[in-house]
Amino acid sequence: MNMSAGRKLEICDTTLRDGNHAVAHQLGHTDIVEYAKAAELAGADLLEVGHGNGLGASSLQVGRAALSDTEMLTAARAQLKNTRLGVLSIPGFATVERDLKPALDCGVDEVRVGAHCTEADVTRQQITMLREMGVTVKGMLLMSHMAPTKTLVEQARLIQEYGAHAVILMDSAGAYTPAAVEEKIGALAGELDIAVGFHGHNNLGLSVMNSMAAVRAGATVVDVTARGFGAGAGNAPLELVAANLHLEQIETRLQLFAALDAGDLAESTFVKRIPTNDSVTITSGIAGVFSGFAAPARRAAQHFEVDPRDILMELGRRGVVAGQEDSIIEVAMGLAEKNSLIDVM
Amino acid sequence: MNMSAGRKLEICDTTLRDGNHAVAHQLGHTDIVEYAKAAELAGADLLEVGHGNGLGASSLQVGRAALSDTEMLTAARAQLKNTRLGVLSIPGFATVERDLKPALDCGVDEVRVGAHCTEADVTRQQITMLREMGVTVKGMLLMSHMAPTKTLVEQARLIQEYGAHAVILMDSAGAYTPAAVEEKIGALAGELDIAVGFHGHNNLGLSVMNSMAAVRAGATVVDVTARGFGAGAGNAPLELVAANLHLEQIETRLQLFAALDAGDLAESTFVKRIPTNDSVTITSGIAGVFSGFAAPARRAAQHFEVDPRDILMELGRRGVVAGQEDSIIEVAMGLAEKNSLIDVM
Repeated sequence: MNMSAGRKLEICDTTLRDGNHAVAHQLGHTDIVEYAKAAELAGADLLEVGHGNGLGASSLQVGRAALSDTEMLTAARAQLKNTRLGVLSIPGFATVERDLKPALDCGVDEVRVGAHCTEADVTRQQITMLREMGVTVKGMLLMSHMAPTKTLVEQARLIQEYGAHAVILMDSAGAYTPAAVEEKIGALAGELDIAVGFHGHNNLGLSVMNSMAAVRAGATVVDVTARGFGAGAGNAPLELVAANLHLEQIETRLQLFAALDAGDLAESTFVKRIPTNDSVTITSGIAGVFSGFAAPARRAAQHFEVDPRDILMELGRRGVVAGQEDSIIEVAMGLAEKNSLIDVM
Repeated sequence: MNMSAGRKLEICDTTLRDGNHAVAHQLGHTDIVEYAKAAELAGADLLEVGHGNGLGASSLQVGRAALSDTEMLTAARAQLKNTRLGVLSIPGFATVERDLKPALDCGVDEVRVGAHCTEADVTRQQITMLREMGVTVKGMLLMSHMAPTKTLVEQARLIQEYGAHAVILMDSAGAYTPAAVEEKIGALAGELDIAVGFHGHNNLGLSVMNSMAAVRAGATVVDVTARGFGAGAGNAPLELVAANLHLEQIETRLQLFAALDAGDLAESTFVKRIPTNDSVTITSGIAGVFSGFAAPARRAAQHFEVDPRDILMELGRRGVVAGQEDSIIEVAMGLAEKNSLIDVM
């Protein structure tokens, strides 16, 4: 393990943020209080809390959260002592005055500012401001499997210039393999002066190994959730990453059995359905398509009587990214047309 | 990928055998018929069918199966054309006259003869006989993480001498990491003239990557189950292994979407609960203890008011193997005594 000298591996538990995707943002007050206690006991370095899409995202468009940002943050804050409190901020959803400042007033310790992997420039304003305010801030590059290593290094350099303390590669489609993780994280760790991290999803069943590969390649921040509770096919599970770090004797603040307990607690309380890999979420990983496209692809497939997997594969070939949801219908219509032509031939 | 020259990767679907462990051996006639159809469509090379512990194992001691061996085999046989029909035979459970011969009469194409990883000699009689009869036969080394590479090579050489067509390393505790898989499979592939295979379990969340590592190291047989349906924390899932083989462009007979369909079918019909990783099954992987010990360890822990994970860790330190179930109570009692001493201090 060639971890960057002197940096202890930091575990970011995003169960109460990315996990909110898995329950349509309906995590309640008790869920947050009980899980925050468990994360504190488990020794997570950071607990990320909020709507699945981060600060200010609660809306008809992407789903209303059960609680407001400040209600969620206040509930978690009261339970945390050594575990720091974090939020995700995606400019576009989150604005400074309406969302970021009230969040900081709730006692947020760290803000993670996210953007599509080729659009680091949209993180500039928030990262610069937060850094000037003395807040710990990380830059998150979404859908990072889509950009070549060279581009990611350039984008990460921008994030470093803006003043972020770290840059995290997000595997939003669960499309990474360990070899790709090692290449990209290794390049970033070699080229940057700030810490590098990895946020894995499980569409191909590789989230644990990808997280371990990231650490091997120099990542010093790893994102996890209890039982993989999270968007799409779920995240890298806290308890399995903890087990593997234990076996590899990699030092963290995690308490092994307490981390396993956190997984059990999540399953027995708010994880309605353990994230799994059905044929559609797996295909989203194969195609490298944003997990959030799975549900609308299923709906379009039903409407146009085509296979949702064919839609996802075609979206993957087109390199479609979040925000281009219109393509789903277009592709589904195209497939239906093609099928009807085949039928009459 | 340095696959042994000329050998196409063979996928053994053990959903209807190892999966039987996950429902206390209660797979019924319809489950078997419907899943056999799906495995045939998926392009599995072999479908293993039977009681979780293989031929002749149905008993009060390890659990009665819903159907007899011949009922299960006959049901599957009628659905298979290009997918071959397989059984597991563990000498001790399975005897030649009572179990093996009637199974062959049902049209079994392949017998997989299993033994603890240091006891290959108990497979001799059956492998020799089956080979003489012209039946395809493989040797299975259970709990293979416990033996050093040198020992496994010696044991595998015995299996080769007896006449087996292949030797499979079983990760009965889900305790392997990809590095260990590559070392052991690589050594076997280098030293043997027969095919080498890997049978992975998911206690550490590494079953998919371990299966891929095995292929990379020269394995030409990979065992899988739909949705990971199987003993302990479950097996390497067919649909995820299929997705990864597709991405790595490794040739098999699998039809990708049909393999994904098989996973969906299993989940929607007989997989009552998708195998997952709770704190006890994970600890069984960390400790390298047979998955079958998890349930009795939970019961003993409750009785003696100790932590089941402490029992498993101690069993792991003692290197306990299947058949030594008495140790569970002994360890639990010891821990309870130690706790009560601490209480009075």
